[in-house]
Amino acid sequence: MRKLINDPDEYVDEMLQGMVAAYPDRIRRLEDTEGLVRLDAPVEGKVGVVSGGGSGHEPTHAGYLGPGMLDGAAAGEVFTSPTADQLSELLTACEGGAGVLAVVKNYEGDVMNFETAAEMAGMENEDLEVAQVVVNDDVAVEDSLYTSGRRGVCGTIFVHKVAGAAARRGDDLDDVQRVAQNAIENVGTMGMALTSCVTPAKGEPTFDLDEDEIELGIGIHGEPGTERTEAMSADRVAEHLTEAVLEDVDPAEGAEVATIVNGMGGTPLSELFIVNRRVQELLADRGFDTWNGRVGEYMTSLDMCGCSVTVLELDEETKELLAAPAETPALTVAD
Amino acid sequence: MRKLINDPDEYVDEMLQGMVAAYPDRIRRLEDTEGLVRLDAPVEGKVGVVSGGGSGHEPTHAGYLGPGMLDGAAAGEVFTSPTADQLSELLTACEGGAGVLAVVKNYEGDVMNFETAAEMAGMENEDLEVAQVVVNDDVAVEDSLYTSGRRGVCGTIFVHKVAGAAARRGDDLDDVQRVAQNAIENVGTMGMALTSCVTPAKGEPTFDLDEDEIELGIGIHGEPGTERTEAMSADRVAEHLTEAVLEDVDPAEGAEVATIVNGMGGTPLSELFIVNRRVQELLADRGFDTWNGRVGEYMTSLDMCGCSVTVLELDEETKELLAAPAETPALTVAD
Repeated sequence: MRKLINDPDEYVDEMLQGMVAAYPDRIRRLEDTEGLVRLDAPVEGKVGVVSGGGSGHEPTHAGYLGPGMLDGAAAGEVFTSPTADQLSELLTACEGGAGVLAVVKNYEGDVMNFETAAEMAGMENEDLEVAQVVVNDDVAVEDSLYTSGRRGVCGTIFVHKVAGAAARRGDDLDDVQRVAQNAIENVGTMGMALTSCVTPAKGEPTFDLDEDEIELGIGIHGEPGTERTEAMSADRVAEHLTEAVLEDVDPAEGAEVATIVNGMGGTPLSELFIVNRRVQELLADRGFDTWNGRVGEYMTSLDMCGCSVTVLELDEETKELLAAPAETPALTVAD
Repeated sequence: MRKLINDPDEYVDEMLQGMVAAYPDRIRRLEDTEGLVRLDAPVEGKVGVVSGGGSGHEPTHAGYLGPGMLDGAAAGEVFTSPTADQLSELLTACEGGAGVLAVVKNYEGDVMNFETAAEMAGMENEDLEVAQVVVNDDVAVEDSLYTSGRRGVCGTIFVHKVAGAAARRGDDLDDVQRVAQNAIENVGTMGMALTSCVTPAKGEPTFDLDEDEIELGIGIHGEPGTERTEAMSADRVAEHLTEAVLEDVDPAEGAEVATIVNGMGGTPLSELFIVNRRVQELLADRGFDTWNGRVGEYMTSLDMCGCSVTVLELDEETKELLAAPAETPALTVAD
């Protein structure tokens, strides 16, 4: 198996140990769980912002822990929701007296376990107020293997950023939830794969894709996309994804947008820049003005080769929150 | 071919266009060349710091353009040195009146072309002073396919950082060169591969590696390593690489070190964290104190699966320069 691992059963635990070993001055692990929090959590008087989900999407979510983004991140087993127990401990650990916002990617297990966790945490601490937003930015499919409604994918990073910035500037729970929800309503993503991911447990591709085929509209767990088609150039891929996202987000004429050309884990950065070239060309042709165009690995699917394109239509407040400083391992915005 | 590209002949040009499209407010391209500079280059009165080399190692080098790191970066064709013409234009474009330091990875073509470029630039502008440092951090092999002496690999990122920080704080050319040379003398790296890279031109693996084999001591151009061996666990890989580097760098008892667990392009971040776990454990066991442990893709080899481990022994000044703020696409250190 082409993997740098020890025991597949220890994959998540050892990865989390390796993260804490990399950033001991920034993050810490909650005892006996797969939850990580920023070192100084809970931050007194600030709304806590947490997220979580299955592992295999690194740097999502723990890479976004830190001032200006997340206070807590729970890691489930690979492609598996964190348990309600684990999420309940995370919510409690990130409560600084102003409530906690949970940013949840739309997968049935995640949504259910976060809801149960909020109830559990609320029973232990009556004063703990938990609000939740559900990110469903994947424009490719309406329902999928693990989801009723659209899946939550790379647009989640923008939601982390705006919620984290709002919490840092002192917004109350309602307002943090409001800006996060507003970002969700204005963001769309679509992905594609050149290869299948390989899970540590299985050690083999989750699905078969011929050398001359690609899968459009792919999810981040190897679940099927919308269309299997013959291989196409980077430009055609960029056009296909961007057009599908624009049709859904439908930005106002001349709107400012923020974008992410995201790698799925196995694709080199050089290829993502080649995709970004055409994405930005196309946005400019349509009269949109990209204010911030990120290129890199933000929401991956283990070692899958492929990419996704995310477009967020900006308003003044969202732009301000995206531009605010943040200091996290995977995303730092300098003041 | 499993690549997101258009025409292999346009690979570098389109990648650079995609970079500029991603960071139009940070970097710009020098007319008619494959050179990129930070938007405000040359910075008046500051020593310019430039680097360059073959493409295929992204984010190296252009990802490190910006305040606190590089002023200019030249991109050759894939795994091919930039031309002397191109480098000469880059040196001239980054001269703000205080001279320019060229940080060169030790490959014969790079070293020769940077030297010729310095002469060419000096003929056009007699006042232009160019100094050069040659990074040769790869402890694996003494000579290789493209190199007399040791190869320059991921340790180069630390050299960019200290040189850039020294230039930013106002050091003169001699001092910028001195801190860069000091970092070079205290850094070592060793890499390994699980798979070969695939160049866009060839479209096939550069070398063959069986499913149950790995290559230790690999370079960043698919050139051979020291040993082909049967696959081993992430822990054994971490031990092998870290021990080889420590033997070479030979840090003083109880020394503080900075480390990079670097991905080669195709390896997911989760696996790098698993490697980092053992690297940090081993360093602690040996009594070394890791002050800053980076994990991510800093110096890649296209889509190769594998990793490298870099250890830099720190002194007070080097540590201060690494900690100084920097604002670049691939590496941002907040104030």
